[in-house]
Amino acid sequence: MSSPDRLHDGSITSPVGFSAGSASAGMHPDGAHDVALLLSETACSGAGVFTQNRIRAAPVVYDDALLAERPGRLRGIVMNSQIANACTGDEGGEAAAAMARAAETALGLPSRCMLVLSTGVIGTPIPIEDVSNAIRGATETMDPEGGIAAAKAIMTTDRTAKHVAVRVETPAGVVTVGGVAKGSTMIHPNMATMLGVITTDAAIDAARLSALLGQVADRTFNAITVDGDTSPNDSVIMLANGASEVSIARDAEGWKLFEAAVELVARDLALMIVRDGQGAHRLVEFTVNGAGTEAMARSIGRAIASSVLVKTGWAGGDSDWGSIFSAAGASGFAVEPDRLRLQVQVRADTGGPEGEWLLLAERGAGVQVDPLETRRIFSAPAVAFRLDLGMGGGEATIWTCDLTEEYIRSNEGGHHAKGGLGTGRGRH
Amino acid sequence: MSSPDRLHDGSITSPVGFSAGSASAGMHPDGAHDVALLLSETACSGAGVFTQNRIRAAPVVYDDALLAERPGRLRGIVMNSQIANACTGDEGGEAAAAMARAAETALGLPSRCMLVLSTGVIGTPIPIEDVSNAIRGATETMDPEGGIAAAKAIMTTDRTAKHVAVRVETPAGVVTVGGVAKGSTMIHPNMATMLGVITTDAAIDAARLSALLGQVADRTFNAITVDGDTSPNDSVIMLANGASEVSIARDAEGWKLFEAAVELVARDLALMIVRDGQGAHRLVEFTVNGAGTEAMARSIGRAIASSVLVKTGWAGGDSDWGSIFSAAGASGFAVEPDRLRLQVQVRADTGGPEGEWLLLAERGAGVQVDPLETRRIFSAPAVAFRLDLGMGGGEATIWTCDLTEEYIRSNEGGHHAKGGLGTGRGRH
Repeated sequence: MSSPDRLHDGSITSPVGFSAGSASAGMHPDGAHDVALLLSETACSGAGVFTQNRIRAAPVVYDDALLAERPGRLRGIVMNSQIANACTGDEGGEAAAAMARAAETALGLPSRCMLVLSTGVIGTPIPIEDVSNAIRGATETMDPEGGIAAAKAIMTTDRTAKHVAVRVETPAGVVTVGGVAKGSTMIHPNMATMLGVITTDAAIDAARLSALLGQVADRTFNAITVDGDTSPNDSVIMLANGASEVSIARDAEGWKLFEAAVELVARDLALMIVRDGQGAHRLVEFTVNGAGTEAMARSIGRAIASSVLVKTGWAGGDSDWGSIFSAAGASGFAVEPDRLRLQVQVRADTGGPEGEWLLLAERGAGVQVDPLETRRIFSAPAVAFRLDLGMGGGEATIWTCDLTEEYIRSNEGGHHAKGGLGTGRGRH
Repeated sequence: MSSPDRLHDGSITSPVGFSAGSASAGMHPDGAHDVALLLSETACSGAGVFTQNRIRAAPVVYDDALLAERPGRLRGIVMNSQIANACTGDEGGEAAAAMARAAETALGLPSRCMLVLSTGVIGTPIPIEDVSNAIRGATETMDPEGGIAAAKAIMTTDRTAKHVAVRVETPAGVVTVGGVAKGSTMIHPNMATMLGVITTDAAIDAARLSALLGQVADRTFNAITVDGDTSPNDSVIMLANGASEVSIARDAEGWKLFEAAVELVARDLALMIVRDGQGAHRLVEFTVNGAGTEAMARSIGRAIASSVLVKTGWAGGDSDWGSIFSAAGASGFAVEPDRLRLQVQVRADTGGPEGEWLLLAERGAGVQVDPLETRRIFSAPAVAFRLDLGMGGGEATIWTCDLTEEYIRSNEGGHHAKGGLGTGRGRH
């Protein structure tokens, strides 16, 4: 028994019994693959966490219903990038269903066993004929090492493909957990334009899987923010096929190890998304402690991590404690200015601390800081802040990035940045 | 009797009996004036609207108490730019009081009759000796046409001095209303890093003045947003000295005309602030109608106008209706995607419509739009959106601007953009 180990080139096909393939439906401006399939050899338990946006893209509506209807009979996921199939009216719902049917037919599966994920521009209809052809094409490429190709096919403004897998030895045997994700703009708590897929060969029933995914998502995918926006497509789906023949629910220790493995996969993917925030130079881990409750700590952390002024200050390498205090004060919570205390620390790329915590401000006012020390800390690619509200025991951590000119450049006339298809340009 | 007329080069000294002066305390990196005085020949009724931020700068705390203590005995305001006197601990409160005392002494006034306004970097103490010297210097420059110099002395990242005055003929006689403001970054509903001063020679008691200012601010200063941030210093103060010997409370028509004049001054100043938003190219008037309530309409308007993704899309000249719908969906209100309808219209610089409303999306999905028409509208320096939620009769308008690379550039290493004094760099 040990803590989870990351696998080299791990992904959703690292767990036993999963394969993936991809193809091009011509939606990507460079002709890159924009359609992907994930397939399990056997039926899976499935669970999903979806956007809190009142506007839910057609695939979100489709999956939410299918997971409720057949939580233990799922076989895989058909995915596409470049077009979100959101704000597409009734035709959008038909297109999502048609994508699932095309995948089921091409793979020789019964109906209502494939989930659907889409990401890309809002308001543009899916070219369903091209996508169905690409789905058939993708079935020719199914590969037990195809997970990374699938990760690439779901990229939009992402600069890197996001994939990871870990193996963990439980008392009942070895299980593997793998994942892929895409992110970039519009990443916020409650998962904005973020897709995540997690697979495992552990045996676990759908109800437990759903509870586990919800808890893990709160501490990982829902604890990141890039630009404070939340999209209609955000989804994290987890499939467990039991192919390892290890039931991790049999004993408490096995469960704890499995939970840690899932959380590691989810956190790795979430931090990859933040690091890849459009134009971001700096990963910021922001912990609020001393709050009245954990929920209060989280809300204040989100308010600070969503402040355009704070984030542009960070881009310039400024601690900007005044703007941080001001953002906390504007959060709507009754913070006590005189109790605020702010520290900062350099973080290694792996997330571990490097050096001591440096006090920036206490009792609501700044302290004298050695400028060389400040410069050293704020030239690091990853920093951690700790804001103590001095009120209670509530604590929460949010991950975010700085906001640079590059972000603006890549979103001016958003249609180019989002795949050359025209954001909100109506039907065409 | 007529509607209010704007005066040429109007300002806070346009109403009878007001004078202003300015000087340099050496806080401005270019040596420009950074201290200003406003003085009324006679005692004024005073009213104030202050930031909703839990962290209130020392001058806000000072003024709030003084307005409660002596609402009818005020004589003027001492103002400074470059240093906000926020997050400065007990010394900050002493510095605000010392500024008021220095102004009262230099002007030969009784104690507790001068209000204080500060704007600039957070967390830096006021150099009280230099500022007191500058206050004495400013008294040598007091001029009944000094309002524009005062408007210049309170600028921080502002590109233009903001001042306006209107004259209105009421049944009881002519009254004048004037104003100055400063804005730029961190402008948001509930007034972020925004200072506004309104003067009038009408006679009006402090209680009525306070009610009027609250209502007007809600429809003007509190209906603008640049970057969604809210500062500890936001203040709008209004002084009425009665020097016109016209009491506007005597009849309903006179009151209505006066109210319109105050609202015109406040709206002009608010729109000047939005137009001057750091790096902004485009003024956007965003009306949400068909909401369940006015408050719901306002909140959804604010959510859209605060969306970084929507605002960067506008910077690229994109209608970005998909992001607008998504931001409405993420606002926390139960909007019905299928009922959403969005129109756009070119606005003249004066705010009036130019041409017809163009339908962009309805029933939650985009409509076919002539690309030439779209291009024409989105190359205009001012546009208006109208988002109908299709739910009820609530309506509200928010003014905002696009978010450009220039905004980021001027806030990276915020200390430079904010006056070269070091944001949050501790005591020095």
